[in-house]
Amino acid sequence: MKKYCFGVDVGGTTIKMGLFDTEGNVLDKWEIKTRTENGGENVLPDIAKAVEEKISEKNIAKDEVAGVGLGVPGPVDSKGIVHRCVNLGWDVFNVNEKLNALLDLPVMAGNDANVAALGEMWKGGGQGYDSLVVVTLGTGVGGGIILEGKMLTGATGAGGEIGHIHVADGEPEPCGCGNHGCLEQYASATGIVRLANRRLENNTDPTVLVKGNCSAKDVWDAVKAGDAVAIEIAEQFGKYLGEGLAAIAGVVNPEAFVIGGGVSKAGDVLLSYVEKNYKPVVFHASRDVKFTLATLGNDAGIFGAAKLVLG
Amino acid sequence: MKKYCFGVDVGGTTIKMGLFDTEGNVLDKWEIKTRTENGGENVLPDIAKAVEEKISEKNIAKDEVAGVGLGVPGPVDSKGIVHRCVNLGWDVFNVNEKLNALLDLPVMAGNDANVAALGEMWKGGGQGYDSLVVVTLGTGVGGGIILEGKMLTGATGAGGEIGHIHVADGEPEPCGCGNHGCLEQYASATGIVRLANRRLENNTDPTVLVKGNCSAKDVWDAVKAGDAVAIEIAEQFGKYLGEGLAAIAGVVNPEAFVIGGGVSKAGDVLLSYVEKNYKPVVFHASRDVKFTLATLGNDAGIFGAAKLVLG
Repeated sequence: MKKYCFGVDVGGTTIKMGLFDTEGNVLDKWEIKTRTENGGENVLPDIAKAVEEKISEKNIAKDEVAGVGLGVPGPVDSKGIVHRCVNLGWDVFNVNEKLNALLDLPVMAGNDANVAALGEMWKGGGQGYDSLVVVTLGTGVGGGIILEGKMLTGATGAGGEIGHIHVADGEPEPCGCGNHGCLEQYASATGIVRLANRRLENNTDPTVLVKGNCSAKDVWDAVKAGDAVAIEIAEQFGKYLGEGLAAIAGVVNPEAFVIGGGVSKAGDVLLSYVEKNYKPVVFHASRDVKFTLATLGNDAGIFGAAKLVLG
Repeated sequence: MKKYCFGVDVGGTTIKMGLFDTEGNVLDKWEIKTRTENGGENVLPDIAKAVEEKISEKNIAKDEVAGVGLGVPGPVDSKGIVHRCVNLGWDVFNVNEKLNALLDLPVMAGNDANVAALGEMWKGGGQGYDSLVVVTLGTGVGGGIILEGKMLTGATGAGGEIGHIHVADGEPEPCGCGNHGCLEQYASATGIVRLANRRLENNTDPTVLVKGNCSAKDVWDAVKAGDAVAIEIAEQFGKYLGEGLAAIAGVVNPEAFVIGGGVSKAGDVLLSYVEKNYKPVVFHASRDVKFTLATLGNDAGIFGAAKLVLG
């Protein structure tokens, strides 16, 4: 009888670890350092050691453990093969097999954004839906797609990489990916700041926003205070993101969009600008999709990893 | 031991039927009329009768038949529930259960575009791939998406309805769906004619194309003959479709795009305009996706329906 599982979120500097019961309650939560030297050869042994220690500390019988789920920062195919995780120094190998050999427990690995989406479906803002798109608005724009309860992995592990959908022609600055006009260039925290600085160039309209010295949070705070210039910027943001999400809905026809990441702390006002620009252009079959906020924050990864191995 | 199955493609005027062996060879192929009167109440009984007659004609034992697959012209969820098929007069009911009750054979129904995509994967232009997007350029733009061998159905049965992705702002004419600026308005046969007529308005450049009197085929024939105006139109078409497909790749990260429908008879030259506009804007993980032409034509539906029930 399985009673426990581990959810692990592997980042470039820390590895978040969670011990769960099979209902999804967190029994313990801790972090270890990510040792990336020598091609990240210590990462999996460190995780194995941490799991073994926790099993021993908690007096858990190993056969009560359903397994270990992992979110890793890079493309992972449905068999657990990673295709280079630059942040960890990893090359190409099968994570499931390698960690299983160290621990003698079932292991399931997935891309961290997809795994986090699974977490939001299971215990976060996406509860009650089994087909959803989780959009993470942070420094960049990330995404994870769940269809009928399963992660959309993609042929080369890049399913749900929605930050690099082309949404604007004629963008002079390059995106981090090398293209021009990606969604991430307008809807991330840095994207909103870019939109703000562009709007504030030679601006003579009254506003609390200061060119070259405003954050995404400043923009949203000003929107909430009724600042007309900030509202224009929010409209632009909403048009890029709302139309981008409408295109995504035209492809996968989800039940819900769950918006997370630092930028989403602006809350419902942000959703309102997205929905307003989404509805007029989306195909009618997806017009009544739900827009909600993510609720698990940085814990989405460990929850999703646990769910991944529980199946 | 199952040796046979039936693939059925239900259209608004005719129902295409195929008897297959389980390897996917067509043993017989025929059509019956679609009787849409009285809410389409005769459609499933007519199909059941046609199947029973064929079984009897061919001296097949019923327990050698794996089942009957169906493509229907409207949204179908993964359990076989149709949500109104306007062309058939159907309301909301479970097709799988209803036809199973008439025939005592396993039945699996799917949306016709998704089912046709499954056919192209199995025996058509998508052979060798299990994650692909089939794009049908006809009077409208249809689509079907297969991920890891399974149809992407969508929450309300509208997965892969890519013709209504918003690709242009400021379009004055409405799309059939009521929105403005849908992909279908530029990349379908009628869309290409619209692009042509707009380009030919007040045109003084030399061209064989005549405003108000050219078909999509005329445009592509002129492109092949080196007509500079036609080439401009093909560039516009390629930009709308190429960028649209790049957005789709950013969502589902497929192995291949398979282009079918009447417009695709233009052949490789059409693919070249699409690929050329796709590559600069797509996320690098999907840059090397394959572009191929559909090969099954109007038979894609019966092949896909057979594959659907074979699993």
